[in-house]
Amino acid sequence: MNVEVLAVGTELLLGQIVNGNAADLGGRLAAAGLDHYRQGVVGDNIVRITAAITEAVGRADALIITGGIGPTQDDLTREAICAAAGVPMDFAADYADHLRRWWQARGREMPATNLRQAEHPRGAELIPNAKGTAPGLRLRVGECWVFALPGVPQEMLPMVDEHVIPFLLGQAGVEGGVLVSQMLRTWGESESRIAEIVGDLYDTNTNPTLAFLASGGEIKLRVTARAATPAAAADLIAPVEAEIRRRLGRLVFATGADTIERIVLRLCAERGWTLATAESATGGLVSAALTSVPGSSEVVRGGIVAYHPELKTGLLGVDPAILDGFGLVSAETALAMAAGARRALGADVAVAVTGSAGPDALEQPVGTMVIAVETPEGSRARVSRSPGDRERVRVYTTTAALHLLRLGLTGEWWSR
Amino acid sequence: MNVEVLAVGTELLLGQIVNGNAADLGGRLAAAGLDHYRQGVVGDNIVRITAAITEAVGRADALIITGGIGPTQDDLTREAICAAAGVPMDFAADYADHLRRWWQARGREMPATNLRQAEHPRGAELIPNAKGTAPGLRLRVGECWVFALPGVPQEMLPMVDEHVIPFLLGQAGVEGGVLVSQMLRTWGESESRIAEIVGDLYDTNTNPTLAFLASGGEIKLRVTARAATPAAAADLIAPVEAEIRRRLGRLVFATGADTIERIVLRLCAERGWTLATAESATGGLVSAALTSVPGSSEVVRGGIVAYHPELKTGLLGVDPAILDGFGLVSAETALAMAAGARRALGADVAVAVTGSAGPDALEQPVGTMVIAVETPEGSRARVSRSPGDRERVRVYTTTAALHLLRLGLTGEWWSR
Repeated sequence: MNVEVLAVGTELLLGQIVNGNAADLGGRLAAAGLDHYRQGVVGDNIVRITAAITEAVGRADALIITGGIGPTQDDLTREAICAAAGVPMDFAADYADHLRRWWQARGREMPATNLRQAEHPRGAELIPNAKGTAPGLRLRVGECWVFALPGVPQEMLPMVDEHVIPFLLGQAGVEGGVLVSQMLRTWGESESRIAEIVGDLYDTNTNPTLAFLASGGEIKLRVTARAATPAAAADLIAPVEAEIRRRLGRLVFATGADTIERIVLRLCAERGWTLATAESATGGLVSAALTSVPGSSEVVRGGIVAYHPELKTGLLGVDPAILDGFGLVSAETALAMAAGARRALGADVAVAVTGSAGPDALEQPVGTMVIAVETPEGSRARVSRSPGDRERVRVYTTTAALHLLRLGLTGEWWSR
Repeated sequence: MNVEVLAVGTELLLGQIVNGNAADLGGRLAAAGLDHYRQGVVGDNIVRITAAITEAVGRADALIITGGIGPTQDDLTREAICAAAGVPMDFAADYADHLRRWWQARGREMPATNLRQAEHPRGAELIPNAKGTAPGLRLRVGECWVFALPGVPQEMLPMVDEHVIPFLLGQAGVEGGVLVSQMLRTWGESESRIAEIVGDLYDTNTNPTLAFLASGGEIKLRVTARAATPAAAADLIAPVEAEIRRRLGRLVFATGADTIERIVLRLCAERGWTLATAESATGGLVSAALTSVPGSSEVVRGGIVAYHPELKTGLLGVDPAILDGFGLVSAETALAMAAGARRALGADVAVAVTGSAGPDALEQPVGTMVIAVETPEGSRARVSRSPGDRERVRVYTTTAALHLLRLGLTGEWWSR
């Protein structure tokens, strides 16, 4: 079962939004063991949408289209499916009633333009949309199942999980086998250095395959196996994973979906320690990352964004003599910020970040960042240089702060 | 000059990273007035990369490939271009020397695998990479210019700006004319309501065209005109923009790239006011958004993430009687947090956010968020309900907090 994905929307081609839907769909298709070799994007143009559908229908067993089924006049996916399938447009009076009730339940009058959402190519099944007003569609076109779904991810993804994937798995029967991935997450070395250490394990024709992914300062290694059953795939992955772990040692900090935020929170919870942040250059990103995890309130006390130097001496209680003597961007100041955050926020552990994020240099060259961690068992600071622009420096430094926090919590940082 | 974009990488198909490169490239092609109708994604498979290149070369005047030219063995774009063009692979000894010097300058030995980056299809021009070690390539294949660039955006985008776009504009001559977009940014109404108010201005065959884009709680309207010159395109856009503004009134808060973060900081600077944040449910996202803007340190004093209730009464000085009487998620508490942030952080203006972000309800149903703003001229709070999961609630609430801050700074919120 070979599934393609086509996103419709001129805003994607103009770069005004990023196609996160394709990534979300890709992840779900892989998890289901469905083959997925191609993705496409096309604008709100009836001729080009129709052409892209026609091409994909000739190549794939299923095509999932996202976008272009909303209420506005630039939503043309329904029309394009009619053109590609050679069928006329019908109107679903019962869905129109459903739409009217949806708006009534929210105490509002339905904008008349929403009635477009009750139109559908003849023969199409409507797929209910629990989170919005645009129903999805499913239609057999030639030898291909074509699905049209909303572009809004919060509406689209439940329809994929509850309808599209189960339907495709039913169609695929046992034919497909499964595609299982194991992700090994590393931090602390460059992609090319990692590739040199484990590169001989790579070969396009092997099963499992190996791939390298860089994101936000972490390098991930993905080992992917195809087999008849999940257990058989796991047996193929195990020896490759063991060899990678043997070579990379402590660079591998986690597997699968276990993010550094979750690991840090778990390490704190295991020790019964609460956590605080003191940020300058990262401006709240470390705190926002930690609190993105559900349940983080069990561990996170809070944070202080001490953007103005006065707040470092005031709220965080950094000795003015340290600021004057060593500067805002120094190991001494970062350590004093971490100690101050523990005190001011009543936490057992604190991570502090100060630095020169740019575009203008602050005492030190742009990209110079200092991260300090203090726990009940020790404290330490690291000065580093990050390449790139303000946003890249902030993101990479946030990742580094979370990792140094991890190494402080386990004690590895003190014992090295 | 019709330009297609092809991203190479199994990690994209598996959904492990999002294809931000396609959006960045799309924005640059539109700004340059180059036509861009199709984007594609294909995995690290030599047969499928070659097929995708061959198809695009038969359809487009130029093809920009991102990814697959790194040092690791799963980087197959160079090989696929050889196959599609029917040319052998050459080795650039002088680029290999350049690579060795690049690593020497950083005091490190070059991993041998990096020598792959000195390989190139015969006849290809190398495009220098100022930020990394993988050079880009340019090769004429049939009637199409094919570019291969790194997948890392910080390396790829400068090569696009400095080499690819100028080269394509030179090839296009004056043929293309320009494509000019004006973006009108709105906040406060749903997409379908906005579409109803201005939908009759939409018609696929008009010039300019109109499109609707929803992101993070804002609805953007894009008016796009094609004309021989930027001035002629601006003349086409002006009357449509005027009519949209007449109908939407104060819903339109900005145009172009002027983000809500920049507007808020500018309003503060104009009034000589400093700014502070007090966050609970958003966990630092409001502060991180404000400090993402270069120069924000002129206005932003800092922020307190008072995740634990004790910090609301402690650091922010919220009266315990208010917390007990009205609850953590109440207008009274949010107002007291804003007042406390002004005091604790020594700022003229403060925005405060408290709420129930989920997945478990905190006093109020998940999605209940309270935002308060206090300036030297007034204060007010709003309770709202956001649909969706934790991340969506946090992002939408961050957007809403910035907008209510804007309405507080201009005084519109008090005078309504």
